[in-house]
Amino acid sequence: MLSLLLFVLSCLSLAPLSPAEKGLEFPQYDGKDRVVDINDKNYKKALKKHSMMCLFYHGPIPDSKELQKQHQMTEMVLELAAQVMEEKDIGFGMVDSQKDSKVAKKLGLQEEGSTYVFKEDRVVEFDGLLSANTLVEFLLDLLKEPVEVIGNALELRAFDRMEEDIRLVGYFKNEDSEHYEAFKEAAEQFQPYIKFFATFDKSVAKELTLKLNEVDFYEPFMEEPLTIPGKPHTEEELVEFIMEHRRPTLRKLRAEDMFETWEDDIEGIHIVAFAEEEDPDGFEFLEILKQVARDNTQLPELSIIWIDPDDFPLLIPYWEKTFKVDLFRPQIGVVNVTDADSVWLEMDDEEDLPTPQELEDWIEDVLAGKVNTEDDDDEEEDEDEEDEHDDDDDDNNEEEDEEDDSESDDDEDDTDDEDDTDDEEDDDDDEEEDDDDDDDE
Amino acid sequence: MLSLLLFVLSCLSLAPLSPAEKGLEFPQYDGKDRVVDINDKNYKKALKKHSMMCLFYHGPIPDSKELQKQHQMTEMVLELAAQVMEEKDIGFGMVDSQKDSKVAKKLGLQEEGSTYVFKEDRVVEFDGLLSANTLVEFLLDLLKEPVEVIGNALELRAFDRMEEDIRLVGYFKNEDSEHYEAFKEAAEQFQPYIKFFATFDKSVAKELTLKLNEVDFYEPFMEEPLTIPGKPHTEEELVEFIMEHRRPTLRKLRAEDMFETWEDDIEGIHIVAFAEEEDPDGFEFLEILKQVARDNTQLPELSIIWIDPDDFPLLIPYWEKTFKVDLFRPQIGVVNVTDADSVWLEMDDEEDLPTPQELEDWIEDVLAGKVNTEDDDDEEEDEDEEDEHDDDDDDNNEEEDEEDDSESDDDEDDTDDEDDTDDEEDDDDDEEEDDDDDDDE
Repeated sequence: MLSLLLFVLSCLSLAPLSPAEKGLEFPQYDGKDRVVDINDKNYKKALKKHSMMCLFYHGPIPDSKELQKQHQMTEMVLELAAQVMEEKDIGFGMVDSQKDSKVAKKLGLQEEGSTYVFKEDRVVEFDGLLSANTLVEFLLDLLKEPVEVIGNALELRAFDRMEEDIRLVGYFKNEDSEHYEAFKEAAEQFQPYIKFFATFDKSVAKELTLKLNEVDFYEPFMEEPLTIPGKPHTEEELVEFIMEHRRPTLRKLRAEDMFETWEDDIEGIHIVAFAEEEDPDGFEFLEILKQVARDNTQLPELSIIWIDPDDFPLLIPYWEKTFKVDLFRPQIGVVNVTDADSVWLEMDDEEDLPTPQELEDWIEDVLAGKVNTEDDDDEEEDEDEEDEHDDDDDDNNEEEDEEDDSESDDDEDDTDDEDDTDDEEDDDDDEEEDDDDDDDE
Repeated sequence: MLSLLLFVLSCLSLAPLSPAEKGLEFPQYDGKDRVVDINDKNYKKALKKHSMMCLFYHGPIPDSKELQKQHQMTEMVLELAAQVMEEKDIGFGMVDSQKDSKVAKKLGLQEEGSTYVFKEDRVVEFDGLLSANTLVEFLLDLLKEPVEVIGNALELRAFDRMEEDIRLVGYFKNEDSEHYEAFKEAAEQFQPYIKFFATFDKSVAKELTLKLNEVDFYEPFMEEPLTIPGKPHTEEELVEFIMEHRRPTLRKLRAEDMFETWEDDIEGIHIVAFAEEEDPDGFEFLEILKQVARDNTQLPELSIIWIDPDDFPLLIPYWEKTFKVDLFRPQIGVVNVTDADSVWLEMDDEEDLPTPQELEDWIEDVLAGKVNTEDDDDEEEDEDEEDEHDDDDDDNNEEEDEEDDSESDDDEDDTDDEDDTDDEEDDDDDEEEDDDDDDDE
């Protein structure tokens, strides 16, 4: 797969602290080269030298100056991460898919733009936001124990609160149990994406309604877990069950695997919900959404991505422009991942949230193809087939877009859209037609 | 105040997405200059031109290449933020404290390294992490309504969950109430740092035990609010009450005002607790800490800063090295903000958390000066006065530190502290005045 080198200086930062104050100094890149240019001759040594090795796999360095600059910026991200993680004995390298194709093949690197972490005999792919923050957090998570032990009722409350994550929890006799060993081995294969917990405590197990050697699988946002059948389990059985049940009905977009999540569409679309959990309306909407997800978790093709805009502030204006929605209030829509074309459920304002039943009906219409991103494209299809949202991230159409956005901040009613001609005007009609053609499946 | 230009490339990032996938494109700096160099002649126009103007106030551009580079990086942070926020009609500028001292004086800019946001007739100082992410989130928060309305029981649950924030909530007749107006005016003065909520709904007010025109003040992590006496309130009365009660017993370190918080020490020290809320041990420790804070909120000089390491991944290795603690498990200690010297409560491992009583006793000892960062410095004071932690972020002492860190991660006994001495003693006196809160309005 080719990679799009799309960048952001999102956290380049400066920390103003009085010279008399210490304790919050942000690391500053010290200029020392730590990221190794990996090749045929040095890769074995590099992998041996560190307890963990982090390799960025990239395409050949491009000719264009612009792209070269981007490549340098990636290098700086890696250098800063390498500097910060030096004390944890984590090495960093870059592998060129063309120059070092042999090494790449030997190491099993496949996706350009991905980062591969080598830890003992495992390789973990990082397909998230390549920022120093996110990468360092990811690596630190990999350094933790793969299984967290729950020892008492208070710790159990912490477990109960993690409804956003896929979690497994097992009850075992003690740390020496062979079944706990198998559980730990399985955990390592999903670290740090899926969380594993265990207890050796009878009363905690009772609270969790776990029998000895039983393992429960918690899908995000669901109230009841699935008990993995056939206890005790081998590592392979656990892995197989997880692979089969991994795709949740409702999941939150996370920086550490956002691209993987986005690529995991169904027939080219995602149902996307924007809701700010910290905001009363966002919270209310999210509760309705969870209810609908719980009631419909049996539908295999239903998978909703919840995005909390607070987690991605730099993307908010981009999303508002691309999707033509106001993200200061909750939204739910269908997004075509190929061209970012979208349709959104109509709500008059933030007080006009759908009821669970209305939301369920809308989702049913989406799954049946009655609500889709294509219907509204018909009318002017011939005129501007070539000219669609593909270039939203280019800047040559910036001026034109700017004007319109500065005025239409607070409402996405139709009047403001008059000046953006072409593909935008057909968005207005889209939400109403629940009926006609199901042609886009 | 001088500013230390300490930087981080923490989120420079690259977004690998298949060319066939759209919808998650991170903004990339397009090279266009948007940040205005503010001077005598253009400042009025610049302020008029935009609905909000964001001015970075900096010292003269330094001679050293290293520092010039840092200055350029700050400019890039601002340029990216300016690009992203262009659609929201927010302008950006830089003011040189020497070259443009007149303008600075006219505009009331005081702290070099701070960013000042001009919104209508208000000026809001941003003294947080100057990253594009944090700054953009801050600016977006400033664009929201200063008061959020709670309309039903579900929205009330969202309010109940925000225990980390200082919040006010009032019950008013309707949107046209003059008392609601005063409440809104007060809210604008603290936006976005302090959250304001209102309800016009009788049953919500009943749940909150609010009478008409009554306003409750919620300190972070406390179970019971304070009712602001003397309803109905004028704007000034509300502001005065907030200023007086603003300093909480327990508060969470947030990127958007981290430096302001850090500078708000008592007699040069902070009680700092590290606890990862997502981790069962961290959660358990935090619950104990909250209990102790609730039981001791009457102590005016008690103020604990809780840091969730997950929020600051790039600082974790720095803190572990500076404070000589293992941040994979909960920690509580006293930190001297002048030199980052510290002592930490001993815990054998993550299972050995203190009871609330033990933690309370320890805090009492801290407040009585029995536990302090100086006692352990005496022994070898004469030998290596000059050699202390100030240069922790340099790399020339890297080798030496690495060795010691790899071994001493798990215990923070005193032996490591022998080499920190000198200027640590004298800073205890400088900041006892609790009144420095008052000058920031």
